[in-house]
Amino acid sequence: MKIGILGTGMVGQVLGGKLAELGHDVEIGTRDVQQTLALTEPNAYGMPAFSTWQKENPMVKLGNYAHAAQHGEVVLNATNGTGSLAALQQAGENNLNGKILVDIANPLDFSQGNRPRLSVSNDDSLGEQIQRAFPQVKVVKTLNTVTAFLMVNPGLIANGEHSLFICGNDENAKERVTGWLKQWFGWRDVIDLGDISGARGMEMYLPIWLRLWGKLGTGMFNVKVVK
Amino acid sequence: MKIGILGTGMVGQVLGGKLAELGHDVEIGTRDVQQTLALTEPNAYGMPAFSTWQKENPMVKLGNYAHAAQHGEVVLNATNGTGSLAALQQAGENNLNGKILVDIANPLDFSQGNRPRLSVSNDDSLGEQIQRAFPQVKVVKTLNTVTAFLMVNPGLIANGEHSLFICGNDENAKERVTGWLKQWFGWRDVIDLGDISGARGMEMYLPIWLRLWGKLGTGMFNVKVVK
Repeated sequence: MKIGILGTGMVGQVLGGKLAELGHDVEIGTRDVQQTLALTEPNAYGMPAFSTWQKENPMVKLGNYAHAAQHGEVVLNATNGTGSLAALQQAGENNLNGKILVDIANPLDFSQGNRPRLSVSNDDSLGEQIQRAFPQVKVVKTLNTVTAFLMVNPGLIANGEHSLFICGNDENAKERVTGWLKQWFGWRDVIDLGDISGARGMEMYLPIWLRLWGKLGTGMFNVKVVK
Repeated sequence: MKIGILGTGMVGQVLGGKLAELGHDVEIGTRDVQQTLALTEPNAYGMPAFSTWQKENPMVKLGNYAHAAQHGEVVLNATNGTGSLAALQQAGENNLNGKILVDIANPLDFSQGNRPRLSVSNDDSLGEQIQRAFPQVKVVKTLNTVTAFLMVNPGLIANGEHSLFICGNDENAKERVTGWLKQWFGWRDVIDLGDISGARGMEMYLPIWLRLWGKLGTGMFNVKVVK
């Protein structure tokens, strides 16, 4: 399948690498291709520069947001949440309309120091903002509650026995994305939280997730819903 | 142990009943004792009136907030989150200072219709508001992420294999409360999220919890943190 991924960070890289490995035709989108390729130093988290990563993942193409969105039959939003709406505007309504947009972003705002807050929450969410800005796009929110390596390989912990959430207004789009999550990555427990306003809860889960990360000393954890 | 519980609702009743059954000397506090006893009809959720409940739980005393707080060596806040600060003011600083206050309340605001929002979130929390208002009280937040019947009996689901969170500024108070959670109710996995600002994540977890309740059709569920 032709897949466009917006965002060259950790999430974009991990998803792009895995999807290319599975045989998909992946293009990652960035704001400025030359600027992205000019970076050669690892970032503050020790993550290699995109150009370094791409040498080991030559099957994954790089284009601007519009080109990657046009390329994809489905588009994944793996940009920073605070920049997602701007990135999607650059990707262009015409390149997104009618398509499924899998929204993985979290509206984490680090501008107030190293304890992030949500830039939107409670009565609204990033998922809903995106759906309102692009009414003809089928926005499906998922994967935002786990670290990148678990997104594509839930079996890395607890034999894959843990839960993922999904929400969105289009039932058929949610079904297709749920199928991909299971088939591509091996997720087994994907819980449908209803329409896109479910993104409020999925995004407001981030503060306890970040706190758990600090407490457990690793992002390699998740929750399993039990009843 | 002498235990004061603020709040005559479902959470106060379930906790009070269980703690009395365990042999503790429990007094539940309310704003107006006569008014509470005058109610005889079940509430909107079908929960029996307090007076009905008390007939089956005669060991549990009823007093005003101040009397119940004075009674308790430890005090549990089981009031509605939007009324917690007012209830605690009525309970009185002098009856709370130096004691452990276990804060179970959630700042859920139903005034905008039946989809609740949080009245405080993101950069602050109810737990922190209470700690700031009562600096000489040892506020420990816990139990707010599960339904009342699971609070006192985690073994009702998944053999008790699921997680509870706790936070607070006083290490010794947290240790004591963790011990009680294990000894009284049978909790096994109690995760310390650090100081009282951990209440932000614990309270912002509520929207996904409420959404899951709607989806699963029952409040008898919880999450297990797996890694």
